[in-house]
This record gives sequence, structure tokens and C-alpha cells, in this order.
Amino acid sequence: MPPPPLLLELALDASPHQLEVAETLLQVGRYLVIFVAARAMAELMVRLQLPTILGELLAGVIIGVSGFHLIVPPETQAQLSAAVLGLLGSLADVGPEAVAHVNAETFPSLQAVSQIGLFSLLFLTGLESELDELVAVGVQATTVAVTGVVLPFALGTAGLMLLFHVPLVPAVFAGAAMTATSIGITASVFGELRWLKRKEGQIVIGAAVLDDILGIVILAVVVAVAGGGTLAAGPILQLCLAAVVFVVVAIVLSRTAAPAFDWVVDRLKAPGDVAVASFVVLTLCCFAAQAIGLEAALGAFAAGLILSASRHSHDIDAAVKPLVALFATVFFVLIGTGMDLSVLNPLDPANREGLVVALFLLVVAIAGKIAAGWSYFSKDPTNRLVVGLGMMPRGEVGLIFLGLGTQAGLLTPALEAGILLMVIGTTFLAPVLLRLVIGARNSEAPLEQPAA
Amino acid sequence: MPPPPLLLELALDASPHQLEVAETLLQVGRYLVIFVAARAMAELMVRLQLPTILGELLAGVIIGVSGFHLIVPPETQAQLSAAVLGLLGSLADVGPEAVAHVNAETFPSLQAVSQIGLFSLLFLTGLESELDELVAVGVQATTVAVTGVVLPFALGTAGLMLLFHVPLVPAVFAGAAMTATSIGITASVFGELRWLKRKEGQIVIGAAVLDDILGIVILAVVVAVAGGGTLAAGPILQLCLAAVVFVVVAIVLSRTAAPAFDWVVDRLKAPGDVAVASFVVLTLCCFAAQAIGLEAALGAFAAGLILSASRHSHDIDAAVKPLVALFATVFFVLIGTGMDLSVLNPLDPANREGLVVALFLLVVAIAGKIAAGWSYFSKDPTNRLVVGLGMMPRGEVGLIFLGLGTQAGLLTPALEAGILLMVIGTTFLAPVLLRLVIGARNSEAPLEQPAA
Repeated sequence: MPPPPLLLELALDASPHQLEVAETLLQVGRYLVIFVAARAMAELMVRLQLPTILGELLAGVIIGVSGFHLIVPPETQAQLSAAVLGLLGSLADVGPEAVAHVNAETFPSLQAVSQIGLFSLLFLTGLESELDELVAVGVQATTVAVTGVVLPFALGTAGLMLLFHVPLVPAVFAGAAMTATSIGITASVFGELRWLKRKEGQIVIGAAVLDDILGIVILAVVVAVAGGGTLAAGPILQLCLAAVVFVVVAIVLSRTAAPAFDWVVDRLKAPGDVAVASFVVLTLCCFAAQAIGLEAALGAFAAGLILSASRHSHDIDAAVKPLVALFATVFFVLIGTGMDLSVLNPLDPANREGLVVALFLLVVAIAGKIAAGWSYFSKDPTNRLVVGLGMMPRGEVGLIFLGLGTQAGLLTPALEAGILLMVIGTTFLAPVLLRLVIGARNSEAPLEQPAA
Repeated sequence: MPPPPLLLELALDASPHQLEVAETLLQVGRYLVIFVAARAMAELMVRLQLPTILGELLAGVIIGVSGFHLIVPPETQAQLSAAVLGLLGSLADVGPEAVAHVNAETFPSLQAVSQIGLFSLLFLTGLESELDELVAVGVQATTVAVTGVVLPFALGTAGLMLLFHVPLVPAVFAGAAMTATSIGITASVFGELRWLKRKEGQIVIGAAVLDDILGIVILAVVVAVAGGGTLAAGPILQLCLAAVVFVVVAIVLSRTAAPAFDWVVDRLKAPGDVAVASFVVLTLCCFAAQAIGLEAALGAFAAGLILSASRHSHDIDAAVKPLVALFATVFFVLIGTGMDLSVLNPLDPANREGLVVALFLLVVAIAGKIAAGWSYFSKDPTNRLVVGLGMMPRGEVGLIFLGLGTQAGLLTPALEAGILLMVIGTTFLAPVLLRLVIGARNSEAPLEQPAA
């Protein structure tokens, strides 16, 4: 519990009104910085024919802990830049401690808004997916997901133990961090390049969803192993069962629930009916997914899939796109702000061990996922490189693994740096390589503007 | 500062993972409850031909501290319902203390999202306002604002002192709480009834904006008086100057900045250009307003006014409406959740003094604002009752005054209850009466659906 307000105000030497002014300025100012930086970099990326998400990640790096320290997640322990402290301090008439305190206090709100962005993006991805196509590629998607989990995990863990003499538990943890796929980044790139509805796009989205489910199971196992506890089969089986139930229920509802939704929406008369009704379905699915032990984000995708058969799907699409444009941007920029690129500097001798580990992990991480692109059978010709590259970005999921390992004190600094670099490398390389590969083979489909 | 995580986990007997699951379930579940309740009540209101905002406020009352305790703002000190504690506790496998802790920790995020809703609503109100019409009614709006501040303040303060023997400082505070106008509620009702662009609508919006500015000056004076400090003229003059500068700059920019905005937007190529560019202007104006000591919400209105002359105003409108439909709903529902209607029960003898005070304050609050509707000169005939009723709802602004007074320990329980009932009464009566008056004289303009 935070201390009573009076003590806090004495410690920070600021009145409630001053703190509130500082809070509003900081919260509004953060959005301003995020939108300006993201937009500038996104425009640059479009002109370089690269996906805009790359610009959003880079914008985060520029304004975050690796750059100007304008946006600083409290968990990175970094300080806000002196310019921010000075400007807000003089406008709200408070000291730098008060600004730092307000930053730590209000950052969860920014993260909550960014979560709305992620959920909206996955909802939109589900909405624009074809259920029949997804089911049709179910076997391929499963093969890709399993191969993309097993290969990086096995090669990474074994390599770390044999080549770098890393003990079992941290090696298993690093291997597990390599199994993730960032469905958000993949969905964003495929959506912008208009490859979401192609067979490759549906295989990748399906595999990324399954990968998210596998990741939760792996995480449960790794946390149990790392905690030194006995590995109980019960909870793991329960999770697997929940995952199967979830997929089956989502598919069944996708075929049956849309008419019920339309029936309800047709009877709504108050303004904003489609937006609110969609969000009821969205939050319901997120709640259900989290309640059975899966990720809420998977529920968002399922909600989109369920509503993709709605007669109102065009209106839903129009209502969700501004949310994605605004808040998914916040989500990707925030990922960038938390990345500390100083471990990349090879001139610092302390970094060298980490860089060697990183290079190994990066190669395994890329090779393992690209190989997964060749793991499935298909009668029609598909671009297997696109599928492999689509599975490559670790993004926020890799960072979550890293955060858990650091928190548990499992990782050496070199291994921490190595995992971080693997995550950064795959996250930034995937959109660039995808654009190059798709651009070369797909010059007839120019970049279009999906959102208003 | 919160205690280190380990101590917290020991105290709550929950792992970080369990707390995170409880957090996600609570956050997603709150949106679900808010949207379902607000939608159900809004639909009921539409069928009763009442403004939907009334349904949103009532939905908040039903699920909040006066109803089922499903959504409980931490500052009300109320407990979450046993059903919520039990459901979340069993799903996330944590105790009721952990759920209560997570509720207190995550509530600011919900409030931050509701602020985005308020800003979006005021932005939309500015966007749909006519600058020329606003300037043309400037004198009338000023007269209405000043009369609507002076009358309730003077009558309220004097009446409390003479009739109820309330001391000077609390009487001044209660009087000040009666000067407020909730621009959010007024804008929402006028927008839904399609009276925003009429002369009455523009007078009310203009007066409500000026009232917000006057309210900040009054608040500064009252806080200085209540704090027992000397009333320095410097800061007050500075605030007044800031207000004048703000209005002048907003009007000048509304005439000149839209072409520059269009020029920039026409050169943007990445998706989501209009939404993000509008939010840059929105956050910039909010930051500027707060930086010179005014409310950030006023900046949101100014931003909308500036962009109302844009060639892209139709696209901006389409991008902002889903945000309003979703997040302004959250804002109004949250206002309702914090209202404790138990003070209304006349059977409890402890309430009777408060009810008598409340009745007096309510009469003054209604009469003072309605009288303001007859305070201006106009060549064209206008519906003065509509203007007076439009100024009536105190809404969130009145609650902010009440919260400050309670926090400072200035108010007796009877006076606290009286102010709360005055706020509740004016807030709920205004939309009902407006609908009755407008409906009776305006049967040719049916309720339309402004949002998708």
C-alpha cells in the first residue's frame, strides 16, 4: 500500500494540486511524444518501403531508455531526462523526485492503454481472418508452431550447455525464451502488406496463436523447474485441456454466434451500438481466455474471429481501426522504450561475452523459425520463407520471458544481454526481411492505407 | 513508494503470476460490466425518449457503491462485492485482500482511460461547433456564464450562513461548488439531441467553457481562503490572464491553423494518418492548457474547434466517434459509481439535516442557472429555458469540488451530503428536463444515431 497522502506530500514537498498538475502534464505529454515520434518514424519507413511497425519500435528506442529518456518504464530503473524533469518541474512547480514519483505512479495507466491497443489489433486481425481458411490450414499451422518451438528450444538449450557451459536451469530458460512468437508484430506486418488473407498469412497467424498457447504451457513448466518445485503433471494437463477447449469453442462460436450478435445489434437503438456491442464480445472473450489460464490477448483474436461472420463486420472494422491506429502504436512504441541497446556496444569489454552468446542465440532463433517454414506439407505452392520469417519476431513475448528470468535471478548478465539482443534482433529483422521478400515477389500489390 | 514486491507478495500470500492474472481479470471484467450495464440502461433511456447519458450515469449507480459494488472507486473506501471477490479469487487463486489491493492499484488506469473518453468527447464537441457562431454568441455566453456563477454562489453562501448558520469558510466552499457546469454532460445531451449547432447550443457550450475557466479561478481563491493563507492577487491575475490568452489564441488558431494541419495530413502516407495527426493536435492543446494553469479538458475542446475548419474534419469525426462511444461511456459510468445515494434515505435520522440543506442547495442551484438563461440580450428569439437547463448539471466538476472540500476537512457531514445531493439532483434532472423541453418544442427532429 502507498503511504498516506500527507506523508507522501511532505516527502515530495508538493501539494495534491501540484502533483495532479504534474500528473496530467506527464500523461498528456507522453502521448504527445509517442504520437509525434511514432508518426515521424512511420512516415520515414513508408518512404523506405518498410513496415510502419518498424518505425514505431524505432521511435520507442529513440525516446526510451536507449535514447533521449523521454519515456522511461519504471521497471528499467532508468531516470527521466533532465529536460523532462526540468520542464514538468517548472510548469507544475515540483521537484525532480515528485516528477519521478508521478512517472512511476502513472506508468501502469499508459501500459493499460497500450494493452487496449494490443487487444484491438488482435481483434482486428481475427476480424480480417477467414475462419474456413484458418481451419483449412490447421494442420500446417500446427506443424509450423510445433517445429518453431521445438527447434529453437532444443538447439538453444543444448548449444548453451555444450558450447557455453551454461547450467541446466538458465539454459532451459533461455531456450524457452526463444520459442515465443510476437503475434502482434506479425499481424501488424501482414495486415499492412495485405498478406493476412493469403494462405501464408493464415498459416502464420494460426501458428502464432498456437505458439502463444504452447508458450503458456512452456512458461508454466519452466517456472516450475526454475522454482525448484516438483513438476506436477496435473496443472500442465489442465492448461493443455483448456487450450483445446478454447480453440474448439472459438471455432464453434465463429460458425454460430455471429447471427445472434447481429440479432442483438439490430435491436440496439442508442448511439455507438456497434462499437459497444463489439467491445462487450471482446472483453467477454478476453475474460474467458484469462479465466481458463490462457492469455487474454488470445481471447481478443477469438472475438474478432467470431464477429468476422457478422453482417456488421464492416462497421466493426471502421470502429476498431482508429483504436488500433492510436493505441497499438502506443503498444509498439512502449516495447521500444524498454529496450536497452547499450549492451550492443562491442567497445565495452563487459558486453563481449553477451555479444557472443547473443550471436549464437540470434542465429539459432532465426534458423529455427525459418526452418519451421519448410516443416509442413502443402498441395498449393506457398512462400515458405514468408511463413518462416513471419514466425521470427519475439517482440513483447520474448521480453516477458526475459523479465521473468531476471526477476527470478536465474540469468547471468551475459545471458540476459544475449536474450535481449536475440529479441531485439529478431523483432527488427523480421519486418525488414518480410518486406524485402514480399516486395520482391509481390510488386503488383502496392502499400495501401488500411486505416482512416 | 510501494513496498518491494517480495514483501507485498508475502503480505498478500500471492505470487506475481497470480496477481497478474487477478489484475487482467479485474481490468477486463470491469470494462465488460461497464459496457453491458451502460448499454442496457442506454437502450432503456432511448425507448423512454431520454438522453443516453442518463442511462450511463444510472448504470454507474447500479454497479457502483450505491448498488451492487461491482465497480468501486478506491477513494470511496467501499468494499467490492463478495461475488466479485469470490469469483476473481477462485479464478486467480488469491484471497480477498489481494483482489482489493489489485483493485486499488489498477483503478487509476481505468480513470486514465475515462479521461481519454472525456477529452475525446470535448474534442468532438469542438469539432462539431461553429467558430463563427461561438464568437457571435460570445457576449451572450459570457453573460450566461457570469450570471450562472454569481447567482448560485451568492445565494448559496448567504443562505447557508443566514438560514443554516454555517460558518464562512464552508459556506463559501459550498457556494463555489454550485458555480460549476459539467461541460461533458451538457455537450453529450446537446450532441445527441442535435442541438449543438443551434444558437442555444452554442451559447451553452461557450458559457460552459467560460464557466470551466471561471471555476478554476474560483477554486484557486477558495483553496487560498480555506487554507487560511493570504489571498495573493498575483496568481489569480496570472490565471485570468492565462484564460484570456487561451481564448484568444484558440480563436486565432481556429481561423488559421486548419490549412497547416491539412497540408501536413496530405503529406502523410502511413496508415492511420488522420487519427494520429488529430491526436497530436489534441494532446498538444491539452498540454498547453494545463501548462498555463487551465484544465486539460479545455485544451481538448480548443483542439476540436481548431480542426473543425479542416478539410478532413469528416474523417476526424469518424475516427473520434468510436473513442467517444467507448471511453466517454466509461467516464460517465465512473461518475455514477462514485455517487453514494444512501444519504438520500429520509428514514435514517442522521440524513435529515443533510436532506434539508440539500433541498435548499438544489433549489438555489437550479434557480440560479435557469435564471442565467434569461440574463442575456438576443435579437433572435431563443429558448431561454433550454439555455438555463443546459447550464444546470454539475456532474464531475461538482464532485471534484466536493472531494477537495472533504479532503481538506472543511465540510460537516450534513453539508457534504447536501452538496452531493445537489450535484446528483442537477446532474440527473438536467438531461430529463432538457429532453422534455426540447422534445415538446422540437418534435420534428427525432433522435438520430450520431455514432457508428
